[in-house]
Amino acid sequence: MSYLGVGVSPGNVPVYHSTNLKVIDRRVRVAELVLRCVICGLGVIAAALVGTDTQVKEIFTIQKKAKFTDMKALVFLVIANGIVAAYSLVQVLRCVVSMVRGNVLFSKPIAWIIFSGDQVMAYVSVAAVGAAAQSAVFAKLGQSELQWMKICNMYDKFCNQVGEGIASALLVSLSTVVLSCISAFNLFRLYGGNKSKSSSATRW
Amino acid sequence: MSYLGVGVSPGNVPVYHSTNLKVIDRRVRVAELVLRCVICGLGVIAAALVGTDTQVKEIFTIQKKAKFTDMKALVFLVIANGIVAAYSLVQVLRCVVSMVRGNVLFSKPIAWIIFSGDQVMAYVSVAAVGAAAQSAVFAKLGQSELQWMKICNMYDKFCNQVGEGIASALLVSLSTVVLSCISAFNLFRLYGGNKSKSSSATRW
Repeated sequence: MSYLGVGVSPGNVPVYHSTNLKVIDRRVRVAELVLRCVICGLGVIAAALVGTDTQVKEIFTIQKKAKFTDMKALVFLVIANGIVAAYSLVQVLRCVVSMVRGNVLFSKPIAWIIFSGDQVMAYVSVAAVGAAAQSAVFAKLGQSELQWMKICNMYDKFCNQVGEGIASALLVSLSTVVLSCISAFNLFRLYGGNKSKSSSATRW
Repeated sequence: MSYLGVGVSPGNVPVYHSTNLKVIDRRVRVAELVLRCVICGLGVIAAALVGTDTQVKEIFTIQKKAKFTDMKALVFLVIANGIVAAYSLVQVLRCVVSMVRGNVLFSKPIAWIIFSGDQVMAYVSVAAVGAAAQSAVFAKLGQSELQWMKICNMYDKFCNQVGEGIASALLVSLSTVVLSCISAFNLFRLYGGNKSKSSSATRW
């Protein structure tokens, strides 16, 4: 438990601490970069899968067309994933620039901005998946008590593609959740202070 | 920005740091306790409002009854808020015990457990509100493209009570989001290490 210098006698702290901090920092930053790339890619895929999804059915002489704008939750999903992907692209560029320049995030205001952005993206993404999943359940199973009929019998291809989009969006939201933990770590460890002085009282 | 001892010369750190840490610790713990109480209370109210909601309508000779189990999203909302309220009650007891005994959370495993629990509750709560809000929109406005009719014209009292329940659940989810930030702060500051040694290189 003492790999960050906690519990080490004050005289040895600086060298021990900085070596381990570098290793952890590198791992955290690589994980952050990979996650942001995954989010960007999958966000675009989710938005594209749902946003381009249409199916036309001819019932006798009437043509009926299903499209994602028929369900507000799918519109929300497309917009949310578009925003998350764009935000992640900006963050990927920031990560790459800071890795190339070898900089370490030690500025609290910037850490707060990144933390807040990541939190908002995570919750928006989770809420969008929740709402879209609920709509998908209605579309797939219907709601007989309310006379809402299932529509996936009729628009099978449309429903399958929406399902793939929601699955992709689910992976995006799980990644944003992990990422928001990483940015919380990056922010709040700046508030760590001088734990080696008080670690003799390790209790809660 | 230096109220936690960051940027203060190492010789002055221990006293300055521990005094300020106590003040911040007390505020954080009071905020945590208040939020957990709010979540517990509002969670019970949300679950009760939605869970006890029924309305019977007589159309000619047929009796039709609306209840929350007609919509899976409302069942999810009731269960989620019940779990969040129960979890918060346990955490309130933990907070009170640790405040009475004057203990400070310095144990990483316990901080990790609390952080993980709070994160799960926050995302479950947000997802439940997202799904329930989507269902409420369908019930209120219908979805004419899919021949899903609005049901709130018929079950007005039922819909109003569900709306109050969702509003309460929304406050619960906002509180859990703030709380998950507090527990992230409590956890990750334990990983702070010896920031006063490296603060001369404040950059990112």
